[in-house]
Amino acid sequence: MRHASGPMHAIACRLHVDETLAAGAAVGLDAPRAHYLRHVLRLDAGATVALFNARDGEWAARIDGFGKGWCSLVVADRRRVPAPEPDLWLLFAPIKRARIDFLVQKATELGASVVWPVFTRRTAMARVNLARLTANAVEAAEQCERLSVPELRADATLEAAVAAWPAERRLLVCAEAGAARPIAATLADIDPTVPLGVLVGPEGGWAPEELSWLLGHPFVLPVGLGPRILRADTAALAALAVVQALRGDGAGRPVDRGAAAPRCDPD
Amino acid sequence: MRHASGPMHAIACRLHVDETLAAGAAVGLDAPRAHYLRHVLRLDAGATVALFNARDGEWAARIDGFGKGWCSLVVADRRRVPAPEPDLWLLFAPIKRARIDFLVQKATELGASVVWPVFTRRTAMARVNLARLTANAVEAAEQCERLSVPELRADATLEAAVAAWPAERRLLVCAEAGAARPIAATLADIDPTVPLGVLVGPEGGWAPEELSWLLGHPFVLPVGLGPRILRADTAALAALAVVQALRGDGAGRPVDRGAAAPRCDPD
Repeated sequence: MRHASGPMHAIACRLHVDETLAAGAAVGLDAPRAHYLRHVLRLDAGATVALFNARDGEWAARIDGFGKGWCSLVVADRRRVPAPEPDLWLLFAPIKRARIDFLVQKATELGASVVWPVFTRRTAMARVNLARLTANAVEAAEQCERLSVPELRADATLEAAVAAWPAERRLLVCAEAGAARPIAATLADIDPTVPLGVLVGPEGGWAPEELSWLLGHPFVLPVGLGPRILRADTAALAALAVVQALRGDGAGRPVDRGAAAPRCDPD
Repeated sequence: MRHASGPMHAIACRLHVDETLAAGAAVGLDAPRAHYLRHVLRLDAGATVALFNARDGEWAARIDGFGKGWCSLVVADRRRVPAPEPDLWLLFAPIKRARIDFLVQKATELGASVVWPVFTRRTAMARVNLARLTANAVEAAEQCERLSVPELRADATLEAAVAAWPAERRLLVCAEAGAARPIAATLADIDPTVPLGVLVGPEGGWAPEELSWLLGHPFVLPVGLGPRILRADTAALAALAVVQALRGDGAGRPVDRGAAAPRCDPD
């Protein structure tokens, strides 16, 4: 379901960059990305790519030249103006390698703004490779046409994450045990201006005393995802999808693909 | 988020079997499953497992003995009576190996009743290994506490699937191009008794004439999943999750885990 090209330019790919994007600005890429453009996509100087970040939007940029381990580009026209994106946090207990990469990619596609690994009582994993997860998030953002990349937070214990929790943000805890309400019914009762987070436990489930402790916090709402026992990654994706459809940006349409906002900046 | 044990018996695992399940019935397992019980789970004769199917429900069964490539069990008490499960079809264009396995597993967890690979214009895969996909569905059903296993249909062209489509079933076509309505708004307008299917295109998207042709059918409704371009597997899982939450069994609770139906048959 991906598309590589827009209607106004032959855009070879989208790349997220931290640098300031403005007409005429020069941007340099590091060795892996220079290699990708030159040897994977086989682009030459003069080819156009898109560069983006949440602060400046998305811009067409022309490849100026390649060198040994670098690529320089000159920014041309703006294609998309910066726009608000969903404010939705995902907290999850780390899972095994293939599944955690997949989870971060999918959470990015589904519009999570913060992705935060938290260690619970029964979490089987001892470490998280934050750099690898960040690379997964960047690549997914490039492919799914987000302007932002989710913030990958350094892993923390669940206790520390809860202690630092902003009181006004509701935390939807996916719970297959106990008296959780269905996620759709819970969402219908939350003021649409209240920011949300989703918390998913490990494959081993919540320890009973851990769940009781969580539910004692005023910002926590236990939610159910139906009668089947979902794997941790499935539960996270299902919860994010339902939140976006019911009170996130699920009514939005991809740029360039319907009657919605044009892809290119009208300025 | 999985649990291996129930409260009434020490149940080592759940296995789906086609045989009739009734008190006192003898059931034989094939070599791979006998191996799994004996050498992976390290069970001995006398241990209890759960056997289930949609027709007879879930039953405790005692291992009677192992032989060379077989295991025999005797069915004891019923743990769950048969119960209606969601009627929700998923049609999808085949994708690469790791992703298609994953998609079938997740669709099973999310309660798809029919899983049907269909070849579209831009589908990059030429073949589907139906036996492998079925094994993925069975294993996911065993883990997620379904009583049924989704029906894996033999792959077909999209044309053939549409030609055979039952007129009363609505087909929600995930479409990032054109004037699709948001999935939540579309679902709100469909009579809750009308059965549904979800159709997701390939990574390359719909060919424009293919999408126009699809939309010409009276049972087809194009739906949008928000402003980001989702990968095919993400789109399928998001659509299934939203359908279940809004008009499937999303209000149900896992057995044994709350105030909902008890796991064991009260008879």
